[in-house]
Amino acid sequence: MLSRNQAKHIQSLKLPKFRREHGQFVAEGVKLAEEMLESSFRIAEVFCMESWLKKNEAALVRKGIRFQEVDETELERISQMVTPNEVLMVVEIPEEQQDDLHLPDLTLFLDQIQDPGNLGTIIRTADWFGIGLVVCSPGCADLYNPKVIQSTMGSITRVKVVECDGQEFLARASVQAVVYGAVAGGQDIYQLEVSFPAVVVIGNESQGISKDLFPLINEQIGIPRFSAKAESLNAAVATAVICSEFRRKA
Amino acid sequence: MLSRNQAKHIQSLKLPKFRREHGQFVAEGVKLAEEMLESSFRIAEVFCMESWLKKNEAALVRKGIRFQEVDETELERISQMVTPNEVLMVVEIPEEQQDDLHLPDLTLFLDQIQDPGNLGTIIRTADWFGIGLVVCSPGCADLYNPKVIQSTMGSITRVKVVECDGQEFLARASVQAVVYGAVAGGQDIYQLEVSFPAVVVIGNESQGISKDLFPLINEQIGIPRFSAKAESLNAAVATAVICSEFRRKA
Repeated sequence: MLSRNQAKHIQSLKLPKFRREHGQFVAEGVKLAEEMLESSFRIAEVFCMESWLKKNEAALVRKGIRFQEVDETELERISQMVTPNEVLMVVEIPEEQQDDLHLPDLTLFLDQIQDPGNLGTIIRTADWFGIGLVVCSPGCADLYNPKVIQSTMGSITRVKVVECDGQEFLARASVQAVVYGAVAGGQDIYQLEVSFPAVVVIGNESQGISKDLFPLINEQIGIPRFSAKAESLNAAVATAVICSEFRRKA
Repeated sequence: MLSRNQAKHIQSLKLPKFRREHGQFVAEGVKLAEEMLESSFRIAEVFCMESWLKKNEAALVRKGIRFQEVDETELERISQMVTPNEVLMVVEIPEEQQDDLHLPDLTLFLDQIQDPGNLGTIIRTADWFGIGLVVCSPGCADLYNPKVIQSTMGSITRVKVVECDGQEFLARASVQAVVYGAVAGGQDIYQLEVSFPAVVVIGNESQGISKDLFPLINEQIGIPRFSAKAESLNAAVATAVICSEFRRKA
């Protein structure tokens, strides 16, 4: 039986304030839960239906993870999904270790990506294209927002994501890497000769890259437009097209 | 003063049933409204705040479009947006003319794309890459769903989108065009030699392309994966990467 306090605690994790306070976030659904179990994330507690427990109890016991069986009504009460899916995990937010940040061959720097769906989708895309590091500016959506977590589709367990101030990160990065900035009307990415290690800066959905970061960008790049009137691409879409081009050329 | 019946009518257009019944949908926000005004869509009525009316009254009068000034509270009452933005239009759903469907050099066929955000983002992407025609299977999200309309960011006024059964459309299309299907593990799009006119089939977010369409696909194509464990890309992201590759090679 789920206690009132437990339900209240889990529900509080919808809000960034309580996620910070408790250092925890929620991950839900069969697929994500199984990826969490295999990842290095520390799982505080699992609330799951009998069906899921049957398949995963051995793993939970082996790893010493606390769990509690809940019924459908209880799961609905704590779930943040439209259609709750067998299991909800409370997971510890890992502590960031930034000082020895090693740059892989391709890094994304996200400057104030504000839509949680975009942020999650970008992390999922980074996973596909083997991008080892995603750096978020402090103005990005909260990484542990349930919509971000869900839209990564499990990639959150595989892609390293850290937060860092843009000027600070790009100043450090430019010592080792070429810094590319995605900009409307930038140099045609199809023609571009790419140098690695590379950092690609993606700007805010409506404002683009912050003005104060431009001096730190070595090359402004853009996706050619094939129609006179189209105005822009979705930020996650633009990121994917650029990642694809960089990987094709690597 | 907004009447109760007006508010009720507009609110009913959130639901597909009433959109079909009235043959109308809602388009909101300054940018989209201005694109609608310039498009061939027939606007039934405009509800707007004074600020917007000042700038656009002349155009409304010239085009003989009915309009009504509303205050912020009234706009909030009828709006489907989190943050209502000055103007809401009730727009006529255009009648489809399919029989003489002419295939442009590049066409997308969407097979049961169910997330409205994905559908809207794909239409926006099609606009950018100059894709003249997007064909939706009957199982796709409703094109006039407010989330679809908003996420096209105005591209709905420029991209031709029609609904057609997959087997019927692809059988007709394959007479003139090569039909490519996006499939996990399909032929590497970076290496692919592309023939135009081309039709690219994009499958459902979790199920992929319907089995009954496979016999109509000439070439199965895929986006190379650069990480061992990543499972998939978001459907709108995958579509964009493929469109980009086709355009790069055209």
